[in-house]
Amino acid sequence: MSDSSSIGAIETRIRELVHDYVGVNGTDAPITPALRPMFHTVVDQALASSEGGKRLRALLTLDAYDVLAGAPDSTQSRSVRTKVLDFACAIEVFQTAALVHDDLIDDSDLRRGKPSAHCALTSFAGARSIGRGLGLMLGDMLATACTLIMEDASTGMVEHRRLVEAFLSMQHDVEVGQVLDLAIERMPLDDPQALAEASLDVFRWKTASYTTIAPLMLAFLASGMTSEAANLHCHAIGLPLGQAFQLADDLLDVTGSSRSTGKPVGGDIREGKRTVLLADAMMLGTAAQRVQLQQLYEQPFRSDAQVHETIALFHDTGAIEHSHERIAKLWSQTQESIEAMGLTAAQSQSLRKACERFLPDFTAER
Amino acid sequence: MSDSSSIGAIETRIRELVHDYVGVNGTDAPITPALRPMFHTVVDQALASSEGGKRLRALLTLDAYDVLAGAPDSTQSRSVRTKVLDFACAIEVFQTAALVHDDLIDDSDLRRGKPSAHCALTSFAGARSIGRGLGLMLGDMLATACTLIMEDASTGMVEHRRLVEAFLSMQHDVEVGQVLDLAIERMPLDDPQALAEASLDVFRWKTASYTTIAPLMLAFLASGMTSEAANLHCHAIGLPLGQAFQLADDLLDVTGSSRSTGKPVGGDIREGKRTVLLADAMMLGTAAQRVQLQQLYEQPFRSDAQVHETIALFHDTGAIEHSHERIAKLWSQTQESIEAMGLTAAQSQSLRKACERFLPDFTAER
Repeated sequence: MSDSSSIGAIETRIRELVHDYVGVNGTDAPITPALRPMFHTVVDQALASSEGGKRLRALLTLDAYDVLAGAPDSTQSRSVRTKVLDFACAIEVFQTAALVHDDLIDDSDLRRGKPSAHCALTSFAGARSIGRGLGLMLGDMLATACTLIMEDASTGMVEHRRLVEAFLSMQHDVEVGQVLDLAIERMPLDDPQALAEASLDVFRWKTASYTTIAPLMLAFLASGMTSEAANLHCHAIGLPLGQAFQLADDLLDVTGSSRSTGKPVGGDIREGKRTVLLADAMMLGTAAQRVQLQQLYEQPFRSDAQVHETIALFHDTGAIEHSHERIAKLWSQTQESIEAMGLTAAQSQSLRKACERFLPDFTAER
Repeated sequence: MSDSSSIGAIETRIRELVHDYVGVNGTDAPITPALRPMFHTVVDQALASSEGGKRLRALLTLDAYDVLAGAPDSTQSRSVRTKVLDFACAIEVFQTAALVHDDLIDDSDLRRGKPSAHCALTSFAGARSIGRGLGLMLGDMLATACTLIMEDASTGMVEHRRLVEAFLSMQHDVEVGQVLDLAIERMPLDDPQALAEASLDVFRWKTASYTTIAPLMLAFLASGMTSEAANLHCHAIGLPLGQAFQLADDLLDVTGSSRSTGKPVGGDIREGKRTVLLADAMMLGTAAQRVQLQQLYEQPFRSDAQVHETIALFHDTGAIEHSHERIAKLWSQTQESIEAMGLTAAQSQSLRKACERFLPDFTAER
């Protein structure tokens, strides 16, 4: 299938699943009429918040499964492919849940170019405290929904328990990563080496876990791979790929090309986000540049002029170039790990192409 | 077992489970040293927030199972009893997750007489935005943990899938209930009949779901009952019991006896919470009393004097007496539903005693 037809199938299925699993559709327990309008608004917001993703994680899940399992040649294998589509959608629904809570934590008004969930719900409810409360619950509902989707879709498969456990472990890892992401904001800036290590560690927990490792894990398990092999390969391929993806995303915040998150260029710098770029700039820069960066980041916010000053420092110190090198090295690790799976040349190439989607600006030039 | 020895076993096991499932204990993926202190603080807070509950839900789960399954007489039945203890703890961990988010939504500083999770974490992090973010993630981590506890504990049982599905449905129902609880705050006060119905509906979703229905459902399924029978009986017994429990809790906010939530008497009135008591007072009162109540509740907060004025109105209109009648009627329904199970007299009596724990001030006098 082409990307666009796969994405079409994913979008349709996500819509069906969110409707069925977030809403209340049983006839035995209807909600009392007076409270229905607000509940339906929350379900509508669940659908709206679920739209507009690039579906990179779902595509990786489907492609990795197809590479391993081959074309469905029987009713049974078509049935498994249908289940894998639901796994792929469950990961996307989990991402939406995480983003809804992330926007609450960061107090972000925008997501994918539209009002964030709690902002949209605040407009409806007419009170910020209620809008934020509804947003929090919407995130909880989506998280419960994705687990139930995964539970239902994997029922009857011999790998059922391992699939559900992998999915829940993914959720736990991302939550750990969110805590670490808040912890890193309180790190002092006097040890750039520790900051770079901490930042890459956050990428592992917060990003690689559900962006690359879990999609590969679920696909590998569904294709019949043993737990040990699936675990080994999904980490070997997925960890460097997920870290490279987040490095590339942080870089795009600075260089601005092809960033489609609906957030302004330089936003990470304005907010003072502790990134690998910042750590690299401090490690590679002169003593004077390091002091300059420390002073810039000691303030609660940076002005437009200071954002540009910081971007110039990221260039001048060689931090931007170093991030490119980091990404290239991680991408090499991913490619080597694909080779190490011992697949056919055609399979390896297909899996590499599936992974390349996460680094469109970096793999094309190679 | 006596209540106190059961509670001791529950407390010990909750502590073990929260430590194991919220923390990161695998040696293959340690957290980078610079970020460990804050992560460990969050895990410590998970343990602190898990302490101090009355464990009514866990006790009901264990007692209902023991009534149905009888004394463990073999290694196999002892093994199931151990699993049921974990189900009971999973419900308690879910409650803690829900309370952590509830305190964020209500911006409550206190919980069970101690600082609420986000307040304690704000003190540690030194910034309210980070403390609230960590509190939100702590609730998410506990919710993921309880699902994984349930998944692991039920593995290998023939009822595995039905148990996990019932547990996830419980979570979904409580989340729906939280949304409805926010929706009810926006209801106009001109239709007390609709308000009473809406309020009782919220009790069903937000309280009965996980307080009485799910504990009974998990216990019944674990004892080998069919899904249909378990579903029928847990709703017939648990729905009126859970609604009576919430009515009694709302009543204790007004009358103040034996309320041990660590919240001040009259707090619901001060905050303007829409309750069945308020609806009953408006339905039963004179036109003048109704206008008086409407005026009192149209303000954002009520003073101490206004709280006392409202409590007097709840007495004078007969609303308090009517709540007692509502509770008595619901408790009768629960007792009839226990009888309808066709158990032995001894079993019925034991199950009734297990249910009575939710209404200590109301069943003793009967």
